[in-house]
Amino acid sequence: MRDQLLDAVERLLVRGGVDAVRLDAVAVEAGVSKGGLLHHFPSKRALVQGVVERLADRFEAVLPGPDAPPGAFALAWLDASIPTESPTGDGSGADQVPVALLAAAGGPEVLDVLRGRYDAWQRRLVDNGLDPAVATLVRFAVDGWWTSRLLGLAVPHDDLHRRLRELLVDLTRPGGGPVPGAADAPEHG
Amino acid sequence: MRDQLLDAVERLLVRGGVDAVRLDAVAVEAGVSKGGLLHHFPSKRALVQGVVERLADRFEAVLPGPDAPPGAFALAWLDASIPTESPTGDGSGADQVPVALLAAAGGPEVLDVLRGRYDAWQRRLVDNGLDPAVATLVRFAVDGWWTSRLLGLAVPHDDLHRRLRELLVDLTRPGGGPVPGAADAPEHG
Repeated sequence: MRDQLLDAVERLLVRGGVDAVRLDAVAVEAGVSKGGLLHHFPSKRALVQGVVERLADRFEAVLPGPDAPPGAFALAWLDASIPTESPTGDGSGADQVPVALLAAAGGPEVLDVLRGRYDAWQRRLVDNGLDPAVATLVRFAVDGWWTSRLLGLAVPHDDLHRRLRELLVDLTRPGGGPVPGAADAPEHG
Repeated sequence: MRDQLLDAVERLLVRGGVDAVRLDAVAVEAGVSKGGLLHHFPSKRALVQGVVERLADRFEAVLPGPDAPPGAFALAWLDASIPTESPTGDGSGADQVPVALLAAAGGPEVLDVLRGRYDAWQRRLVDNGLDPAVATLVRFAVDGWWTSRLLGLAVPHDDLHRRLRELLVDLTRPGGGPVPGAADAPEHG
């Protein structure tokens, strides 16, 4: 029932944002009684927090363990967030639930839950054999890219998408991948 | 009067988020009549859009023009967003108004205004003499870093802050700065 309710919350979020997550609407969308809903999630905050935690769990499930080879953690972060090919459609990411924006909209308690997760991920990221600054650079670039897709802010497509992704993959290689400079930059106007 | 009203909106945003931006509250905060407010901004959406546009104007004002040397645009983006030293306090960025989150909360029309700005900035960024993928990498890393500060998600401090910033500055140098790899990485557990 928990997952059924959280699925319903995610559908409402995609359709109408956080404002659409009302207890009555969630019960109707999930096809359960209001009492059944309140038994699992006593408030809107609990529902939003439930979705944030489930999204964080799913992200965590694809991250490598402590014995992963150097750079594997940063590479997994990239792979979990940015597809190999550029997105089709308008790139606004309407098919994804925005975990960071959602946590922020959920209020201080929900945001604190996500902060705890990020702290743990950051520790594992910088402890995975890369220069910590390079590993953190990859994390921020991936998060910034994902935010741009989510909000539809000047999303790179096609060749630029692929080259940016290759550049990030190179950065996750121990020893630091080559950074293409002016010498091998293609023409660009 | 416009700026006075937008100043009042920003104060309300910092104190209570988008929910705190109500027409009555803005008029009281700005010390103007409701009629005076409505003359300039007929709706909450217009107020939020006004703040987004003013923030974008301020960002734009520190970006270099078309004759800037290679990499200057990416460097200005970095300088406008991330200070040289790591932030004091909790790093949650409560002193800044979050333009992207604000635009998203303002609804589709307000988000479209910011999308237009980003499209123009992205064109200037990739047309400023760096490899477009490297320039876009810097943009995404800066935006991801800024989002992490804003939401307080595993914000780098002190030495990691400085080294990450240096790495990004190196990337804005034509020819591509050196990326520190395993060979010169400091010990990190």
